[in-house]
Amino acid sequence: MIAIDWGTSALRAWRMAADGTVLDAASGPWGILNLPEGGFPAALVALLADWPDAAGLKLIACGMIGSVNGWHEVPYVDCPADAAALARALGRPHMGGAVPGIVPGLRQFQPLPDVMRGEETQIVGALALHPDLSHAATLILPGTHSKWVTVRHGRITGFHTAMTGELFAVLSQHSILGRPAEGAEPVAEDEARAAFRRGVQAASSSRQGVAPLLFSARSLFLTGGLGAAATRDYLSGLLVGDEIRAFLADRTEMLPTVLVGEDRLCGLYAQAFEMLGAPVPRLVGNTAPAGLYRIAVEAGYLRPTPEEDTTHGDTT
Amino acid sequence: MIAIDWGTSALRAWRMAADGTVLDAASGPWGILNLPEGGFPAALVALLADWPDAAGLKLIACGMIGSVNGWHEVPYVDCPADAAALARALGRPHMGGAVPGIVPGLRQFQPLPDVMRGEETQIVGALALHPDLSHAATLILPGTHSKWVTVRHGRITGFHTAMTGELFAVLSQHSILGRPAEGAEPVAEDEARAAFRRGVQAASSSRQGVAPLLFSARSLFLTGGLGAAATRDYLSGLLVGDEIRAFLADRTEMLPTVLVGEDRLCGLYAQAFEMLGAPVPRLVGNTAPAGLYRIAVEAGYLRPTPEEDTTHGDTT
Repeated sequence: MIAIDWGTSALRAWRMAADGTVLDAASGPWGILNLPEGGFPAALVALLADWPDAAGLKLIACGMIGSVNGWHEVPYVDCPADAAALARALGRPHMGGAVPGIVPGLRQFQPLPDVMRGEETQIVGALALHPDLSHAATLILPGTHSKWVTVRHGRITGFHTAMTGELFAVLSQHSILGRPAEGAEPVAEDEARAAFRRGVQAASSSRQGVAPLLFSARSLFLTGGLGAAATRDYLSGLLVGDEIRAFLADRTEMLPTVLVGEDRLCGLYAQAFEMLGAPVPRLVGNTAPAGLYRIAVEAGYLRPTPEEDTTHGDTT
Repeated sequence: MIAIDWGTSALRAWRMAADGTVLDAASGPWGILNLPEGGFPAALVALLADWPDAAGLKLIACGMIGSVNGWHEVPYVDCPADAAALARALGRPHMGGAVPGIVPGLRQFQPLPDVMRGEETQIVGALALHPDLSHAATLILPGTHSKWVTVRHGRITGFHTAMTGELFAVLSQHSILGRPAEGAEPVAEDEARAAFRRGVQAASSSRQGVAPLLFSARSLFLTGGLGAAATRDYLSGLLVGDEIRAFLADRTEMLPTVLVGEDRLCGLYAQAFEMLGAPVPRLVGNTAPAGLYRIAVEAGYLRPTPEEDTTHGDTT
């Protein structure tokens, strides 16, 4: 089986054994907003080029590939939902000969409308790898659009999006706050760390959220309190610190927390949790391949019917 | 006298009688980051082209023209400061034959470092036009970098910057939140107003600031709760509402408030104040010309010495 996480800015694939063991991995820059000439099919062919047996394997994909701007729109499934609900709603378009399964996103209307696409699969993977989380936990997926997800009895019951990563990107690249760090000497590791921690500290002591604090990234630079390149780390600390502060301040009960995703970013979040005096969440890494495998199993995707076997034999 | 407000993105000038009466106004798009070929001198010549007597008049300017990226850097004056302190610190560079006065910006270190350049002049103007504010007031100058300024006994004693306008601009132009409104049918006046008010309402009921709410501009759109073009007004309401909510929540005493600046933007702020159940601030319009005049008077700028008169006679 080939499992694919196809997001807005990148594309990752894993070749898997029938028991879910990852045999090989590949990645490319062809997110749905950044496709090569030839569009989705060309990106897929390029990604799988090193795997000569790929044409004979089942495909399952999650992420923005199933959005209205993706290859094939798969309607959202409503919360609460589990792996079985996602598997039942798998989109199965014809795509240039292949018929992959595309995992739907999740949607909620209460307490606030919200949506996710791709993260639901990582959550399924985290629960598959760490069954102790299934009873009740908060899973945090830091990123462009961070998700804070509540799981109870194996189901995703609700979630909240904080667009921390995108806020950091647009402020760094397009606002006056990013100006000093442009072309500045790179900052030393310990200075970067200190600036990040200073940002977290400022955010943690703000009673009014992060917006009133943003300009301090510039004021501190102009008044000599912060080096040019360190303004970037300070801003990161402000935004991440505020995201976590808001969660801790609003939470009504104490569930176990885990951080799902790449270690570097999750490590920054763990640091901020510690500074804010909260239990440091466990880091569980990238669980997308495990989630795709689990959903494929739920969908009966790994037990081809005789008919499918025949078709397959005809076309190769 | 010619008074100039020379900011980051635009340039405005007023021709004035010796008693401060505005005789004429001119403006151009040549902010300090958007200069024509020929730079600052060319922008000035173009701006004053319609005023044949301009070469014989005194010039006074405020705004980013005095910043490190401006024509001539004028060091910040520290708070607390009044019109006299600004007049004493006026920069007087030679600029292609003319010697304008450039108003310094203001700086504070406590309680948080902060800076302004241009707004100090508008505040001086507001106090000159409305002497009742001098005893104690909060002056609000909405904009790219909104300033919330405390005045006591005629002096600016402290201030705070909220980068609301820039946050709105970068999120609208560069983040996923701006996507739906791009190319969408323009929204009707009353729908825009309703969406703005809905944003203010959401911000007013948030206990954790605006960051956790930002993604709702997209979720509401995706789940059918908000029209494409109205997402822009909703976002504006979120940001303006949060800015005012944070001020009201943090304030320790009730000073009279006024809104300084263009009527359209100040009107939105007034609307949000009303929705938040606070006394609606008075609108005092653009007070930059009055401020430049007052500082010029304090600087003795309008009583040319005989020497200067001679020089002037020689060069024309």
